[in-house]
Amino acid sequence: MKPARSTVYLVGAGPGDPGLMTVRGMSLLQQADVVVYDRLVSAVLLEFARGDAELIDVGKGPGRKSVTQKKINQLLVERATAGRSVVRLKGGDPFMFGRGFEELVACRGAGVDCVVIPGVASVAAVPAAAGIPVTLRGVARSFAVITAKTGVGLADSRHDYDALSRIDTVVILMGRHKLSTIVDGLRCAGRADETPVACISHGTTPRQREVFSTLGKIVERVEGAALEAPMITVVGEVVAVSRATVDDAIAAIYGSLPV
Amino acid sequence: MKPARSTVYLVGAGPGDPGLMTVRGMSLLQQADVVVYDRLVSAVLLEFARGDAELIDVGKGPGRKSVTQKKINQLLVERATAGRSVVRLKGGDPFMFGRGFEELVACRGAGVDCVVIPGVASVAAVPAAAGIPVTLRGVARSFAVITAKTGVGLADSRHDYDALSRIDTVVILMGRHKLSTIVDGLRCAGRADETPVACISHGTTPRQREVFSTLGKIVERVEGAALEAPMITVVGEVVAVSRATVDDAIAAIYGSLPV
Repeated sequence: MKPARSTVYLVGAGPGDPGLMTVRGMSLLQQADVVVYDRLVSAVLLEFARGDAELIDVGKGPGRKSVTQKKINQLLVERATAGRSVVRLKGGDPFMFGRGFEELVACRGAGVDCVVIPGVASVAAVPAAAGIPVTLRGVARSFAVITAKTGVGLADSRHDYDALSRIDTVVILMGRHKLSTIVDGLRCAGRADETPVACISHGTTPRQREVFSTLGKIVERVEGAALEAPMITVVGEVVAVSRATVDDAIAAIYGSLPV
Repeated sequence: MKPARSTVYLVGAGPGDPGLMTVRGMSLLQQADVVVYDRLVSAVLLEFARGDAELIDVGKGPGRKSVTQKKINQLLVERATAGRSVVRLKGGDPFMFGRGFEELVACRGAGVDCVVIPGVASVAAVPAAAGIPVTLRGVARSFAVITAKTGVGLADSRHDYDALSRIDTVVILMGRHKLSTIVDGLRCAGRADETPVACISHGTTPRQREVFSTLGKIVERVEGAALEAPMITVVGEVVAVSRATVDDAIAAIYGSLPV
């Protein structure tokens, strides 16, 4: 008798700190027959997998032979079709720049059930770990998120910097190696050189390091500090308010508004 | 002898589903002397608090007498100063449209330690619960987030719809009662009437309901379906791809790209 097909769970592992895994994700991880994980997933989390679970590293780190997305999709489908429960553990949130939807479509195409368990996204959690809110009443009422990594072969990989430069807070994911391109794009589109900027490397982990500067000087400062990837960049007034004195922060938030 | 000051933990409770609470947040909740919680926090989560914990509801629901932000700030500071450990449980993520930073500043001003524990933000988790990724290779490389609720007394509460209309995916939080204003803003700025739109009410909970339509028709459809707040709206091609056949989704994502 053939085994019943099992389910693939696309689980967000959060931004790095293993305590930021969700309760449901942790429970699925502890029960899974197979765990397929990315480079940015904390090794501490893998210790929660069953002793007899199959752990498969498909991390696409720099300088290593990468497992293609097609191969990852095949792995998920094969294991689930063989009746084994699969947790696909992905850094951050599976549906935010994570190729999670591509894996869901592959499962769906093969008739395999696939369930998404959202995770704590690095978009807000990494700035928070550096004390920075992405939005703030009276200071930032909108934020935009881009990734510096562009899909291979995309005809036009430029961002609409004119639009981005007019959003209160801009968060740039994975931007270590393209920082100067993106900073130049925002500056050319009219975002002021004095705009406060923070770059956060290895956010929410013990290796976290930060550089605070301005749009005009951040590239030089990040080079000087030799910040490593993965790195997240936050552009906007929220960066300055996060470092202000209590009185100055209150003035920025409330102005003449009631508290 | 005066008791030692304790710490205030600003904990993100996630989008509604109690399983989306973080492991660290759950652990702090189980130990807290005092839990100060919002309206959008699941009642199931409160059952994890200690039997003798003080539970304080400061929810600002429609049609109820609201606790002012100033009063909430005072509560947090008073309890922590009395030596009691405080979990401030907030829907979603504390630093994303949550006034969490205001509470942190209030604690800091009073000399009380305040630690932020990020949560699963509704921004990606609620669309995911309706099958929609906010970004997708080949389809959406940026997203922007706004809230429809504006700060009381803000001089200019209009959003920069021209900029927003040029971001691939726009996510609107708390937009039930201002949906037509925001939809009109995007349309007047040039976003096409045919742009796919999804509205998701009570996302990630058993009461979740969705309406899928287009920018030109969504307001009428949401009224017809009598969707309730809280509601999140997603505008962009990702909405259509999420509902496409497997073959059409693959074509949209990869086009002529290698898988």
